[in-house]
Amino acid sequence: MAATYSTKQWFVKERSGDNVDVEKAFELVAKDLSVDDLKEGQVLAKAILFSNDPTQRTWINKDAVEGRHYRVPLKDGDPMEAYAIVEIIESRNGEYQKGDLVFASAFWAEYFILAPESLIFKIEGDPADTLTLGLTGLTAYFGLLTVGAATSKDSTIVVSVAGGATGSVVCQIAKNVLGVKNVVGITGSDSKCEVLKKTCGCDYALNYRSPSFKQDFEDSTKGGIDLYFDNVGGWISDMVIVKIKEFGRVIVCGAISIYDDMKGGAVSAGISRDTWMQVIFHKIRIEGFIVLQFTDQYAKGLTDLWTWLAEGKIQLIKQVWEAGIEDVPKGMSKLLNGENTGKLITKVIHSQR
Amino acid sequence: MAATYSTKQWFVKERSGDNVDVEKAFELVAKDLSVDDLKEGQVLAKAILFSNDPTQRTWINKDAVEGRHYRVPLKDGDPMEAYAIVEIIESRNGEYQKGDLVFASAFWAEYFILAPESLIFKIEGDPADTLTLGLTGLTAYFGLLTVGAATSKDSTIVVSVAGGATGSVVCQIAKNVLGVKNVVGITGSDSKCEVLKKTCGCDYALNYRSPSFKQDFEDSTKGGIDLYFDNVGGWISDMVIVKIKEFGRVIVCGAISIYDDMKGGAVSAGISRDTWMQVIFHKIRIEGFIVLQFTDQYAKGLTDLWTWLAEGKIQLIKQVWEAGIEDVPKGMSKLLNGENTGKLITKVIHSQR
Ligand SMILES: NC(=O)c1ccc[n+]([C@@H]2O[C@H](COP(=O)([O-])OP(=O)(O)OC[C@H]3O[C@@H](n4cnc5c(N)ncnc54)[C@H](OP(=O)(O)O)[C@@H]3O)[C@@H](O)[C@H]2O)c1
Ligand SMILES: NC(=O)c1ccc[n+]([C@@H]2O[C@H](COP(=O)([O-])OP(=O)(O)OC[C@H]3O[C@@H](n4cnc5c(N)ncnc54)[C@H](OP(=O)(O)O)[C@@H]3O)[C@@H](O)[C@H]2O)c1
Repeated sequence: MAATYSTKQWFVKERSGDNVDVEKAFELVAKDLSVDDLKEGQVLAKAILFSNDPTQRTWINKDAVEGRHYRVPLKDGDPMEAYAIVEIIESRNGEYQKGDLVFASAFWAEYFILAPESLIFKIEGDPADTLTLGLTGLTAYFGLLTVGAATSKDSTIVVSVAGGATGSVVCQIAKNVLGVKNVVGITGSDSKCEVLKKTCGCDYALNYRSPSFKQDFEDSTKGGIDLYFDNVGGWISDMVIVKIKEFGRVIVCGAISIYDDMKGGAVSAGISRDTWMQVIFHKIRIEGFIVLQFTDQYAKGLTDLWTWLAEGKIQLIKQVWEAGIEDVPKGMSKLLNGENTGKLITKVIHSQR
Repeated sequence: MAATYSTKQWFVKERSGDNVDVEKAFELVAKDLSVDDLKEGQVLAKAILFSNDPTQRTWINKDAVEGRHYRVPLKDGDPMEAYAIVEIIESRNGEYQKGDLVFASAFWAEYFILAPESLIFKIEGDPADTLTLGLTGLTAYFGLLTVGAATSKDSTIVVSVAGGATGSVVCQIAKNVLGVKNVVGITGSDSKCEVLKKTCGCDYALNYRSPSFKQDFEDSTKGGIDLYFDNVGGWISDMVIVKIKEFGRVIVCGAISIYDDMKGGAVSAGISRDTWMQVIFHKIRIEGFIVLQFTDQYAKGLTDLWTWLAEGKIQLIKQVWEAGIEDVPKGMSKLLNGENTGKLITKVIHSQR
């Protein structure tokens, strides 16, 4: 008799609009998985850690349109996806054995069947560190070093959402690997500012909720800005871009401030006329990227990142919270509410079987 | 007794705000120039042709700030400047003789004294053609070929303000030099659309004032857009950028739709949230430039442009209007009102002395 796994899995019930309780977009469904269902190449796996990524919010956006996204957005009724560290329970794939821990593109469920293309790599180091380096560390790495190449030590770099997963790595690569003189991190709380100054090498850490933010920003960027690593979009980005120097660059990594506030998309992304004029007058280059475009260079990126970690050039700031499958969608709210410092990781607590 | 030249010269009386009669910003002052005033290296010159450039509007913008512009903006009381073809009347500069026609950075006046650094080059070809090629043709050339390099023949290129001075050259280089498959020009009248189709090699010429514009735009860019040469800013640009394909590029040459409508600068430049998300999702590169950054390559650019002109690959669309010195500021209104097709050139009619 083949083994059966009772699992609970989150599906997209109704894609989310702006500024509503995003957790309401999902519904939890109980189902049974049988090992008999495994096809050649597939594995049956168990969720160990979930990566919480702001981009997941964009996958379930009510107005997301295929061809206007970097991936096929999810539809109502689709199973919710997530990057995860999974443990192989049963395998019909020669590359993966029972017990292996694998970085995978998986689902919000306790157990799931994964196709071979969803299995990204077998992990060797610490699972939470692995989840923090890939794809988050890789995003910082490729964004800063490839798209933002040619950054001189004498630069002023501004990083938004600096206290988050990607931002905290960007600041450290900028300071400790590139040796950039003036690294300015912007984030949403004083406690995150502390981490930025003490651990992430920021010369200035600015709390955008502080009444003195505008003045603090002026003080920290007196000579102008060479490079802006943008995770936030909106008014913060407008304020930064308008101060960029001649031939300065903007790396558009994300725009979390608008993911849950698209207002039909027609509303300004926060680029004012003054700022747009600076793009011309100061010959500014603005460039978007998606880490997935560098898939063929992940191995090199990960080698560098693990080396810097071993050398103490970067430290991984991470926040692991434990959740039963029922609570998993709360991770998305936590990101949108700014509750995390560094990488937010969900450790899945499995109910006794 | 030294010769004296009675001249009239336009000064900036009060820099201009948004959407007011821009001609009111200037005042005409009569003065006498004496050849005795000429210092070593200087020339006394006579205005022959004035270049009408939208950027002149930005030099006299009420809120223009030094360090936030590509040049030092003009102040109240400054003489108004203009690129011009001038005739040397008296010279204390060994490189220029009486009678030479020179492309210069000059003033809105009948006669003026020019410093050696204002004399850009001696002209040989037709004066109006020379004014059209430099700096306008050079702007099209460097914008399209340097900043927008790597454009494949299989591309769709969209050009805004295509019926204007720069745009009309961009379209022709794209079609007749680069051999781009689909060149889409956007402009403000049906008559300009005719010129774009008949003379400038546009596969589609769209009138943004037509009720069918949005549909026409969809029809002409079915496969998405590879490159956008942006002269306009605002809602037209937003509409174009949101349709740019993966790894597509935007060359930000100008934003004439906002020069006279800055509303304090805080208003959106027209980049909506939908569009900004495309910058990330589709990894779009947006880059501003100022033709002056290529000064050291003008000679090569002009050689290519004159060659293409001789080969019939480009034709210069120009509109010459005659004006006494009293009427010169009308040229700025003409540009802002869209009255010109191609390069707007003022031929200065001198009063009898
Ligand atoms: N291009 C790519 O390939 C790629 C890959 C990964 C991530 N990203 C992007 O990078 C950004 C950061 O993602 P991450 O994975 O590193 O997660 P993260 O930084 O940990 O994101 C969560 C943080 O975002 C901030 N935030 C949330 N809502 C905000 C708002 N309305 N205004 C300002 N800040 C807000 C909060 O920090 P504060 O307390 O500082 O506000 C929160 O803690 C996101 O925009 C994401 O989409 C892009
Ligand atoms: N970056 C550089 O180095 C550089 C150098 C030269 C020029 N430029 C820029 O290139 C653009 C074109 O300049 P140009 O010298 O070639 O002159 P131009 O195209 O002849 O400019 C005048 C034309 O602009 C259009 N226009 C005016 N107001 C408008 C509005 N509110 N909305 C839409 N279109 C409007 C009109 O054409 P329609 O009938 O089509 O509306 C008008 O005929 C300008 O933005 C200019 O600043 C940049």
